[in-house]
Amino acid sequence: MREIGVGLLGLGNVGAGVVKLLADNAASIQARLGARVAVRAIAVREPDKRRLVDVDQALVTTDVAAVIDRPDVEIVCELVGGETEALGYVLRAIERGAHVVTANKALLAAHGDQVFAAAERRGVDVYFEAAVCGGVPIIRALREGLASDRIESIYGIVNGTSNFILTAMAGEPRGFGEVLAEAQELGYAEADPALDVRGIDAAHKLAILVMLCFGTRVRVEDLFVEGIDRLQPIDFDMAARFGYVIKPLVIAAEHPDGIEARVHPTMIPRSWLLAAVSGAKNALYVKSYALGASLYYGAGAGMMPTAMAVVSDLIEISRNVCAGATGRMPLRSYQHMVERPMRPLDSLHTRYYLRCAVLDRPGVLGQLTTVLGDHEISIAQVIQEGPRDPGRPVQVVLLTHAAREGNVRHALGQIGRLATVVEPPSLLRMAE
Amino acid sequence: MREIGVGLLGLGNVGAGVVKLLADNAASIQARLGARVAVRAIAVREPDKRRLVDVDQALVTTDVAAVIDRPDVEIVCELVGGETEALGYVLRAIERGAHVVTANKALLAAHGDQVFAAAERRGVDVYFEAAVCGGVPIIRALREGLASDRIESIYGIVNGTSNFILTAMAGEPRGFGEVLAEAQELGYAEADPALDVRGIDAAHKLAILVMLCFGTRVRVEDLFVEGIDRLQPIDFDMAARFGYVIKPLVIAAEHPDGIEARVHPTMIPRSWLLAAVSGAKNALYVKSYALGASLYYGAGAGMMPTAMAVVSDLIEISRNVCAGATGRMPLRSYQHMVERPMRPLDSLHTRYYLRCAVLDRPGVLGQLTTVLGDHEISIAQVIQEGPRDPGRPVQVVLLTHAAREGNVRHALGQIGRLATVVEPPSLLRMAE
Repeated sequence: MREIGVGLLGLGNVGAGVVKLLADNAASIQARLGARVAVRAIAVREPDKRRLVDVDQALVTTDVAAVIDRPDVEIVCELVGGETEALGYVLRAIERGAHVVTANKALLAAHGDQVFAAAERRGVDVYFEAAVCGGVPIIRALREGLASDRIESIYGIVNGTSNFILTAMAGEPRGFGEVLAEAQELGYAEADPALDVRGIDAAHKLAILVMLCFGTRVRVEDLFVEGIDRLQPIDFDMAARFGYVIKPLVIAAEHPDGIEARVHPTMIPRSWLLAAVSGAKNALYVKSYALGASLYYGAGAGMMPTAMAVVSDLIEISRNVCAGATGRMPLRSYQHMVERPMRPLDSLHTRYYLRCAVLDRPGVLGQLTTVLGDHEISIAQVIQEGPRDPGRPVQVVLLTHAAREGNVRHALGQIGRLATVVEPPSLLRMAE
Repeated sequence: MREIGVGLLGLGNVGAGVVKLLADNAASIQARLGARVAVRAIAVREPDKRRLVDVDQALVTTDVAAVIDRPDVEIVCELVGGETEALGYVLRAIERGAHVVTANKALLAAHGDQVFAAAERRGVDVYFEAAVCGGVPIIRALREGLASDRIESIYGIVNGTSNFILTAMAGEPRGFGEVLAEAQELGYAEADPALDVRGIDAAHKLAILVMLCFGTRVRVEDLFVEGIDRLQPIDFDMAARFGYVIKPLVIAAEHPDGIEARVHPTMIPRSWLLAAVSGAKNALYVKSYALGASLYYGAGAGMMPTAMAVVSDLIEISRNVCAGATGRMPLRSYQHMVERPMRPLDSLHTRYYLRCAVLDRPGVLGQLTTVLGDHEISIAQVIQEGPRDPGRPVQVVLLTHAAREGNVRHALGQIGRLATVVEPPSLLRMAE
């Protein structure tokens, strides 16, 4: 039986999952593929470290280049993470004529075009299903399932840590810091949670999604990114009162004048399917011309779900190798990527949730609404919380009708300077 | 530029959608594929009928064989429906060396193995994304996205008509007949709704899903199939009171002693994502070894969603043709289909909702619970509706703990013969 040789770079969580899944499902993978997938070498930093799986020590080496360059390694599986080093490994593999599977969203968001161009020149495959939404096969859905369609917009929950934290904060009134600490204890958040809770990880994934959906490249630095770390318990309480849920969303759409792409916590109606995506789960909602609404849901992280996506990519490439058809899938969903301008955030037209801490004095609400009115922002609903302690500020929450982001920001700046407003006001964007 | 020739059999709803989508998205399809997809001929029954799209009349013919046999037709797109005729067309196309795209679930459920075996012998592709869940790319998800995984169970809403009717009946207390008539008026149900509301259409799709998920063939006749036509408004009211929703489900699972596969309305907890799948939408929930839970949601029918799946299949085959790699995807998810026994329904172990119309006399509830107790069925909750008119029967609803279907049916038979029970009792299976 034909054997496809794989070289693993990295044997952390996902790498261990790949080794385990290839062993656990060896028989069915062989039956489905008509070939065996064999790990030929594994590059690690610390060869003596304890691993989550037993591996033949003879396969393990610290010499990454030796793994990449082995002639019997047909597919290099890059699981080291990071940008610069990983880019070097991936380009070296491609240059050598090896196919590549990677789960590295930071790499693809920053250097995807370079990697894909190199792969196209060399006629090798690069698969990256695990880079967005973990095990959920959304890359396949976008590149193949919806290949005949035109995607209009996407709404995604693509960071499990953030979704876990917001789900917990919606469940009971607790502060961000407390919930984050719990998430870290449970293994749902890293020791350094900044990449997740500040929206950077989601932005990497969004850049990849924009490329796949709209055939254009965006720089992560050009995306509007806002984390979840400034949300207060009162925001969840208020959202629930209005019939909404706060979710950590990536949003993108194609407009005649450019691409809209943003990452921020968003208030969505409780009736949306995305509102029911809770805990560390991920989901992508897609609106397209012919299919209309579709949604893809599942585990966006974790050892086995991520490994599942990586091994399915190994199978896919192996099928291509066996059929002598590598390079059959265009890596850039359009042969020639189209450069499209990014829409400035200021031109966003949507509904807003605004919250201000104000002194409990007559006329304050009138001041707020006057400023908003001056900026063509019309108000749909207002709730003013009574003060718990006399003399303490009260929270005023307003839901606006659709307004321009530029106007809203300008108005909030003015409101923040009012003598009766005791903290900079905050905003949440809404989606309907 | 390379042109891939397509022959269409049928120009109804879906056929017209295919012609429209190929025209509307011609530029992006060409860019993604690096080739043109050209309709070379269209076989229809009535050449003079008015169509939903304008087509070049020179392409239209009543001679199906002539379309199939054209040497410049590389892909035959079977959209005529039905079993026997369609089987003949598809086999003729395969024999001639043409690839096939079909949306025909009845054909694949009954003759899939024969079609796939013929295609494998001849080395041609057969794609059928539109056969299950319309435009939602679940065939790709199961065959490619989850190729490395082991599927344990599936729960699907795969018939839009049934889901539309049950969603409407849950919304307000109306009888099945009234809602069905409305669905027919709105175009959500056929003039002859039997295939949909009696679960036959869902059973065809389930047979295909079982083949893909568990690598075994099942005969539609061997599946347990129960329609939605016996549900009463009170069932929806009671389900809501208990925190459940009634959904038209297909359910399948692999067990050591065989395959479980059934089609029936099911009570599911309101918190499930499937409970939020409303109207004519479809969704498939998959539980698998490595990924855990995943869900795929979208339009399961309709001209453009179904055409989207068909045209994406045309693109996929065209990619294979261009790469000289047709036949790269094994058609039977396991090279050699394994014969597995079907689990008898009597051995099902689940919770039940039971409803009996009884005379409003003391001791009746005791009689019911005694019969159930004798069959090792333990009761979790009981609601007895007060009679609206004196002397009229009352409805007693019981939720059981997990029990064996065989015992439940036997007990219901005995209960139906009690003098105080005025109608045959009914049951709904629950899922948790």
